Amino acid sequence: MKKTIRLIISCPDQVGIVAAVSQFLNERNGSILEASHHTDLDQKRFFMRHEIDASTLNIDVDEFRAQFGSIAEEYQMDWCVSDSTEKPKVILLATKESHCLNDIMHRWHTGELDCEIVGVIANHEDLRSMVEWYKIPYHCVVVPREDKMPAFKEMERYIDESGADTIVLARYMQIFPEYLCEKYKHKVINIHHSFLPSFVGAKPYHQAAVRGVKLIGATCHYVTAELDAGPIIEQDVIRVRHSHAAEDMVRLGKDIEKLVLSRGLRLHLEGRVLVHGNKTVIFDA
Amino acid sequence: MKKTIRLIISCPDQVGIVAAVSQFLNERNGSILEASHHTDLDQKRFFMRHEIDASTLNIDVDEFRAQFGSIAEEYQMDWCVSDSTEKPKVILLATKESHCLNDIMHRWHTGELDCEIVGVIANHEDLRSMVEWYKIPYHCVVVPREDKMPAFKEMERYIDESGADTIVLARYMQIFPEYLCEKYKHKVINIHHSFLPSFVGAKPYHQAAVRGVKLIGATCHYVTAELDAGPIIEQDVIRVRHSHAAEDMVRLGKDIEKLVLSRGLRLHLEGRVLVHGNKTVIFDA
Amino acid sequence: MKKTIRLIISCPDQVGIVAAVSQFLNERNGSILEASHHTDLDQKRFFMRHEIDASTLNIDVDEFRAQFGSIAEEYQMDWCVSDSTEKPKVILLATKESHCLNDIMHRWHTGELDCEIVGVIANHEDLRSMVEWYKIPYHCVVVPREDKMPAFKEMERYIDESGADTIVLARYMQIFPEYLCEKYKHKVINIHHSFLPSFVGAKPYHQAAVRGVKLIGATCHYVTAELDAGPIIEQDVIRVRHSHAAEDMVRLGKDIEKLVLSRGLRLHLEGRVLVHGNKTVIFDA
Amino acid sequence: MKKTIRLIISCPDQVGIVAAVSQFLNERNGSILEASHHTDLDQKRFFMRHEIDASTLNIDVDEFRAQFGSIAEEYQMDWCVSDSTEKPKVILLATKESHCLNDIMHRWHTGELDCEIVGVIANHEDLRSMVEWYKIPYHCVVVPREDKMPAFKEMERYIDESGADTIVLARYMQIFPEYLCEKYKHKVINIHHSFLPSFVGAKPYHQAAVRGVKLIGATCHYVTAELDAGPIIEQDVIRVRHSHAAEDMVRLGKDIEKLVLSRGLRLHLEGRVLVHGNKTVIFDA
Repeated sequence: MKKTIRLIISCPDQVGIVAAVSQFLNERNGSILEASHHTDLDQKRFFMRHEIDASTLNIDVDEFRAQFGSIAEEYQMDWCVSDSTEKPKVILLATKESHCLNDIMHRWHTGELDCEIVGVIANHEDLRSMVEWYKIPYHCVVVPREDKMPAFKEMERYIDESGADTIVLARYMQIFPEYLCEKYKHKVINIHHSFLPSFVGAKPYHQAAVRGVKLIGATCHYVTAELDAGPIIEQDVIRVRHSHAAEDMVRLGKDIEKLVLSRGLRLHLEGRVLVHGNKTVIFDA
Repeated sequence: MKKTIRLIISCPDQVGIVAAVSQFLNERNGSILEASHHTDLDQKRFFMRHEIDASTLNIDVDEFRAQFGSIAEEYQMDWCVSDSTEKPKVILLATKESHCLNDIMHRWHTGELDCEIVGVIANHEDLRSMVEWYKIPYHCVVVPREDKMPAFKEMERYIDESGADTIVLARYMQIFPEYLCEKYKHKVINIHHSFLPSFVGAKPYHQAAVRGVKLIGATCHYVTAELDAGPIIEQDVIRVRHSHAAEDMVRLGKDIEKLVLSRGLRLHLEGRVLVHGNKTVIFDA
Repeated sequence: MKKTIRLIISCPDQVGIVAAVSQFLNERNGSILEASHHTDLDQKRFFMRHEIDASTLNIDVDEFRAQFGSIAEEYQMDWCVSDSTEKPKVILLATKESHCLNDIMHRWHTGELDCEIVGVIANHEDLRSMVEWYKIPYHCVVVPREDKMPAFKEMERYIDESGADTIVLARYMQIFPEYLCEKYKHKVINIHHSFLPSFVGAKPYHQAAVRGVKLIGATCHYVTAELDAGPIIEQDVIRVRHSHAAEDMVRLGKDIEKLVLSRGLRLHLEGRVLVHGNKTVIFDA
Repeated sequence: MKKTIRLIISCPDQVGIVAAVSQFLNERNGSILEASHHTDLDQKRFFMRHEIDASTLNIDVDEFRAQFGSIAEEYQMDWCVSDSTEKPKVILLATKESHCLNDIMHRWHTGELDCEIVGVIANHEDLRSMVEWYKIPYHCVVVPREDKMPAFKEMERYIDESGADTIVLARYMQIFPEYLCEKYKHKVINIHHSFLPSFVGAKPYHQAAVRGVKLIGATCHYVTAELDAGPIIEQDVIRVRHSHAAEDMVRLGKDIEKLVLSRGLRLHLEGRVLVHGNKTVIFDA
């Protein structure tokens, strides 16, 4: 895989941004492999992502960062530059159900997900053997019903020590505490097993069966303090029939949960998700 | 198209129903073209639909009805028998938007929808010329904001005189009054421009744009007193992106609205929708 | 709708193109509403489309064309500049089936397709009344089995006199002659009722039924001399079951044909389809 | 899970079959959990599948078989009766790619696929550790390019000794020999990585990239002597764009391959696939 530099920008919209950035890249001989723009006309905000062939640039990533600062300041940019060889560090949280966890670990194992998985935290022991087969550290943190805070503190310590920059709730059946949502803002990815905003909260497939919907879905989103209400990254649905009871929906839904979570995670890891307010701009290839 | 007899049954579940019905059909030499069953295990209720080649039966539809009565009584059946040559009568309600109306009229005109369209009621004059090209009577009933009841009374009279047994709200932008929902129970079909139960009520595409969903949808359902909460017949979705503003969703959504409404209407007209409680059993071919 | 200038470019790939073009736009104060790039790494060819807010530019479209010439020459560009107020002229060809024709005319009538429909040519009289309701000229050119050339010559004359720049075969059941495919290269859009390259030629739904496929599809493509082998613009599919005979597929397929053709036509009219070799780059919003 | 008896029938179509079978079931007090019928009007052939609650029957599965014989003879039925507690035995064949293999093993491990996996045969050692984690026997049979027959003979011996009644080619990259196709007719399931009949044979994603299709797919089918031409069980597709090179299609296609193979295998294991000629009747729930 080619080494690339990713430049991600969000700033107030005005004429000249694209010219300034492309002029900057051209002067450093950067060959643009992929470029995406979006202007939010309501918010008058501009979003841009470039993927540049690092081998064509006549400077390295640190010089790039240093030199880009003046443009960034001029246009009041929120921006970041990253290097595709610095792999993002991911930590996975799970409970007992393995379909999402197995799916992510298998994709990582076969080189499909370009990241480092630094560990799995679970509140049960059930998945230890599967995780350890992948040579990923498994850390069991039981979350007692009556006093959860010490457990979350332990998880926080473990996350921070691991250096993880992305936390994936791979069907983790505990509500992530508000203070950690704040601390890891836009870094915690959840998969909810409904087509949000329908069926927030517990047992969404049972809610779906009661309402008699003809499609069920799954939603990958950033976790925020409000339950199942954070910025949506990806969603998909699958058709169901009257003959499908809630337990059939649980089974059918797993396939959509896996797909939606792995697609959402991939987009996040490649810097293709730009959050503004409670919405996302998705620059997929 | 073959003349067929449709036998539709719903009754408490017990052993022997299928045997009794198929024995009844066999004794009258009825060749079964299509048969569908469903047992709702929670409700212990059984649903069945048969489509029988009328030319093979040694009795006519009236004799069929008369003779089937004793089985129906024995098994406490809700049932109906219909003859595919007795075309259902459909009345369409619209406002100014023509995409659903044109779609249904065109399908009917080309023989795809097996029904009689007895008229269009609209609360504006805009669609008259299009409807009249199809030689369908157009009846404009203005619904004044301050006193709607006389208008609904006029519509009711018109519907009853037309003999319509199915009323389609083809993007009719008035709330259908509760007393008419009761009177025409399970006969009024609406298309709602969202994937229910998300985005009930007004301006669902704008709600969808605000929430930042990645799929938008449409829902065809029977109208009940509670807004957008009746039994769902059919739903579908289409993918949207961050670049789609609410007005793009309005445009993209039209294609899904048309498809979902025409599929739902077709299922209804062919007696493939069996309602129980707030859910539907759909016996599609 | 905003007046926009569209700049569409294809050229050998090299560093500096984006900078040159965006510098050009910036110097003329052009606000970029939408920008899309693609590099074909095999062919080392670069593709770009810009949509610019015309009201922000300090020159008009003719000056734009004149001034852009030197950049275009420097980078050996195939390019075109168009003005969104110059509506493309479309001519529709049909036979007896109306579903695609009605769909396109209705979208045009309601302002969804931004073009001028200059006429319909059909080889039968069946659709005249429907077309004339839309106040579109209807021209019937019978194509006799034994000597088709005079008919095609008449159609060619009619097309040329109409000034049409896009020719849509809306389920036109004659093979478009090779010399017209050459003459109107990348201007003739066909809808084929299969998921190409499966089921080329006649009766694709019957071929699909014989093969027992579980999905059927439709393909919108530019017409070339080789039958059903031109560059693909858009495709989609719909699920079928063993209970669907070929005639059910014909009915179900119509919905996909309509959608795929109207999506493909829209992409073409908005200058979002760039052909290279036998493939297309699609810059959808 | 309830113990059920499955009765699967195919016979010449005639009036009275349903009555005879349901009478038979009723006399033995069998409660029908699921019933599906299909008549192929061209072939005048009737297909039926019943799933009966075993606990309600007043006979066991052997008596059922013995007593059903006379009806079966009368109506010239091809038929089989099976007991849901007799788990089908599955053997998996693989090469180096693990996505389909891991997917099936994980579904089986979590109880989603109701079968016994009796072994994996692979022509490389790469997947041994993954398979053995699941405690499934792994048997490596190298297939030398110059003389493949001894390898196939060894595989045949291994399959026969395992008692497998279903053989799954989970991206097995060797052509299954004709004599084994004959021997295990309708027992060998393959996943082909294209939407058949498009792109038969080697490197279908590269063929798809060359043709410029806008959707790619996968097909699960029974293996027959003619390459990629056997009866289709299940198919699905995923959208691709001009920015997807063949290697992106390979990655995206894996998700469809896994889903389509596992759905097809599940249908097969539950006796929901009835083959006639080169087509399948699929009685899904």
